[in-house]
Amino acid sequence: MRRLTPSDAMFLYGESREQMMHVAAMMPFTPPPDASPDHLRDLMDEIRAGVSVHRPWNMKLRTPDFLWNPLQAWVEADEIDLDYHLRRSALPSPGDERELGILVSRLHGYHVDFHRPPWEAHLIEGLEGGRFALFVKVHHALVDGFSAMRILARSLTTDPEERDRPLFFAVPPPARTPRDEVAGVNYAAVMAAVREQYGAAQTAVRALRKVLDTARSGSMDYVTPRQAPKCVLNARISQARRFATQLFPLDRLKAIARATKGTMNDVVLALSAGCLRKYLLELGALPPQPLIAMVPVAVRAKDEAGEGNSVGAILANLATDIEDPRERMAQIIASTTHAKQQLQGMSKAAIIQYSALLIAPSMLQMLPTTAGHVRPTFNVVISNVPGPSEPLYFRGARLEATYPMSIPMHGQALNITCNSYAGSMCFGFTGCRDTLPSLQRLAVYCGESLTELEATL
Amino acid sequence: MRRLTPSDAMFLYGESREQMMHVAAMMPFTPPPDASPDHLRDLMDEIRAGVSVHRPWNMKLRTPDFLWNPLQAWVEADEIDLDYHLRRSALPSPGDERELGILVSRLHGYHVDFHRPPWEAHLIEGLEGGRFALFVKVHHALVDGFSAMRILARSLTTDPEERDRPLFFAVPPPARTPRDEVAGVNYAAVMAAVREQYGAAQTAVRALRKVLDTARSGSMDYVTPRQAPKCVLNARISQARRFATQLFPLDRLKAIARATKGTMNDVVLALSAGCLRKYLLELGALPPQPLIAMVPVAVRAKDEAGEGNSVGAILANLATDIEDPRERMAQIIASTTHAKQQLQGMSKAAIIQYSALLIAPSMLQMLPTTAGHVRPTFNVVISNVPGPSEPLYFRGARLEATYPMSIPMHGQALNITCNSYAGSMCFGFTGCRDTLPSLQRLAVYCGESLTELEATL
Repeated sequence: MRRLTPSDAMFLYGESREQMMHVAAMMPFTPPPDASPDHLRDLMDEIRAGVSVHRPWNMKLRTPDFLWNPLQAWVEADEIDLDYHLRRSALPSPGDERELGILVSRLHGYHVDFHRPPWEAHLIEGLEGGRFALFVKVHHALVDGFSAMRILARSLTTDPEERDRPLFFAVPPPARTPRDEVAGVNYAAVMAAVREQYGAAQTAVRALRKVLDTARSGSMDYVTPRQAPKCVLNARISQARRFATQLFPLDRLKAIARATKGTMNDVVLALSAGCLRKYLLELGALPPQPLIAMVPVAVRAKDEAGEGNSVGAILANLATDIEDPRERMAQIIASTTHAKQQLQGMSKAAIIQYSALLIAPSMLQMLPTTAGHVRPTFNVVISNVPGPSEPLYFRGARLEATYPMSIPMHGQALNITCNSYAGSMCFGFTGCRDTLPSLQRLAVYCGESLTELEATL
Repeated sequence: MRRLTPSDAMFLYGESREQMMHVAAMMPFTPPPDASPDHLRDLMDEIRAGVSVHRPWNMKLRTPDFLWNPLQAWVEADEIDLDYHLRRSALPSPGDERELGILVSRLHGYHVDFHRPPWEAHLIEGLEGGRFALFVKVHHALVDGFSAMRILARSLTTDPEERDRPLFFAVPPPARTPRDEVAGVNYAAVMAAVREQYGAAQTAVRALRKVLDTARSGSMDYVTPRQAPKCVLNARISQARRFATQLFPLDRLKAIARATKGTMNDVVLALSAGCLRKYLLELGALPPQPLIAMVPVAVRAKDEAGEGNSVGAILANLATDIEDPRERMAQIIASTTHAKQQLQGMSKAAIIQYSALLIAPSMLQMLPTTAGHVRPTFNVVISNVPGPSEPLYFRGARLEATYPMSIPMHGQALNITCNSYAGSMCFGFTGCRDTLPSLQRLAVYCGESLTELEATL
């Protein structure tokens, strides 16, 4: 049995008909040249046959009919119905990227089942050229996106000839170390603090105050939790999803980082800012003030086990009010540099507590009673999750890319997450279908944004 | 705007994460010999292009975020996102009946979206032999199963050469007649009556008393709302579904009806009783007392419009305690004959009110607060929906069969519904995946049950 951490519990409490707190990954593969037409069927039979399912993939909720139970916990399921969790799916013709995007949007747009371990894996056949894709979906209260990607990578191999590595759910977890409870966020305390309008006197609140005070002095480098403009991205969401992807060679992004003296993360933010500006301009909905992004930062200790969530956060000014791409990039770099300086000199526990305070108002929005009534502290979540640098294989099939699908929430209708993998940066844009009717354009404009930045070098 | 009838509202209130109140139909088609491999793609493009969507398919809830709103209503949607409602899907190889069953179970196992008209239609390609299937799903609060089947049939044609008939959502509804409000069930009153242990003094309650009194005299022909035995079929359900189908020539069923002096409905009940007995025996879970089936009876006036629900009900003794198939059948016929006699001489309004009283305790179970705490009045719902007698075509493709998928509920983990169509009887077994792990066997045993009955003729 494992009690839920307060952070896990938040993702459980946030779950509703419209707001589904699972994350996913879409991974297209190129099969080996010697693959038979039936290899996917054989593969599935083999995968389902007699494997044991390891933690956390064998854990289910103790009281699935009473999510808010204060004694809620993850318990080991007696039986795993692998036919349920491991699914074969197929694309209608012509099996192009568009059809793949449509299918995974649908698969991402319905709930996990809390009466069993809350995950599904789909082996999707029918992609053009005999290719296939793996789609894996898991509730964030069980595994966070960072950990899920790491576990997925462990079930792949750099050796194209290795054909018997178990799939992710059958990989034993690394030896567990006691959870560092000090590092956990006390969300009840956070909520209380937020309700007092950031008025409490703990360390984190003092740090936050410092940010607020600096902001009041007029500098736009610091981003405070109160300055995000109103934006169409911050609407209540409905149930259906859209998903768009974009893939860039890492070298192109690195060249920009070098030339602008920014980080890879800054380049990701700049590309996101560029496409958001263009997209919102076209909708006639670009706020005059710059959009603010919440950027999760992994603060997990290296010796920590793969379960649970320990994510910190900074707020970044996306400078979407600036037309010139190079100037915009400079403003973004200034903003993230200051935010990171702010975090320096704080203990790990304090960093987490501080980050929780930053994002707390938007977490309040997850709860049904407050959804839509709290002004967002930021306009969009942009995550950059570093991934494996070498090409990976699954039973001889080469992983082409790994696209993350994240969680739109009430007040946060869009999520941008990217993974680096084998010399590429893979962007995933996950949005509410109704709030973002032309989400695909964001991916297109993201590419244009890169070209424009390159032109300034 | 259309206010919800009390019956529509019940199906809305019953909706929860596990209990999804939509019905569906699975319809396999054989394409015309001249169909090109791309005809399904072309067909979908054509279907989506510039059609108008008619009532009720363009109606959505006024307050989707507040289902229980006492002022809840169906309003016309300003815009219909046809790409959302009309979907292309595909089967993994080999595209056999098993894969089709798996796919439609999944499609039936997630919620409709109440932020838009609550229906989806999937054109499923990849069936063996170049065949395809249409899967249509709609919330019961918008359209009941009877009406949905009738509307679907209207969008098909008996002429294989007619290639331009609009799909169901684009067919204008027949001229509307004023709703016969007298015939509606006042569920608030029903609930109050049930809470008083059937103790009120209205006509329907007097009729029900008569049934109870007769039952107390020892005859098993009358079925009372208190005598259903405890059974595994009456568990709380989880979210996932299983679906199994069976198809019989109508002539075989008619021969049994003739020989036993029963109705077609009695034969359907006998086949269901036979497979349930065998299935439960195998699980070691056959109750010593006979299972009781609730059998919906359509009481709609012929001039009534296609929306809304007006369904009456009788309770039938399935005689699952009797080993001999012919004796079992005789007992079933005696039970349904008496139940129908009971309904005779009652006005239409009284019949509906009476039926509502019969099924009320199980409707109470739909509500989250009472689910699982009320003893079921019956063990299983068995519906027999007469359908078109001639072969139908959709743009030259011949409809092979039409399998209904209905609603498992808390306390009612299995639903058996069958449609007659073009000389066949199509059975659909819809169940909770966890409560009915080997649902497929029910379909197999249903076939064996028919052979056994035939052997007694």
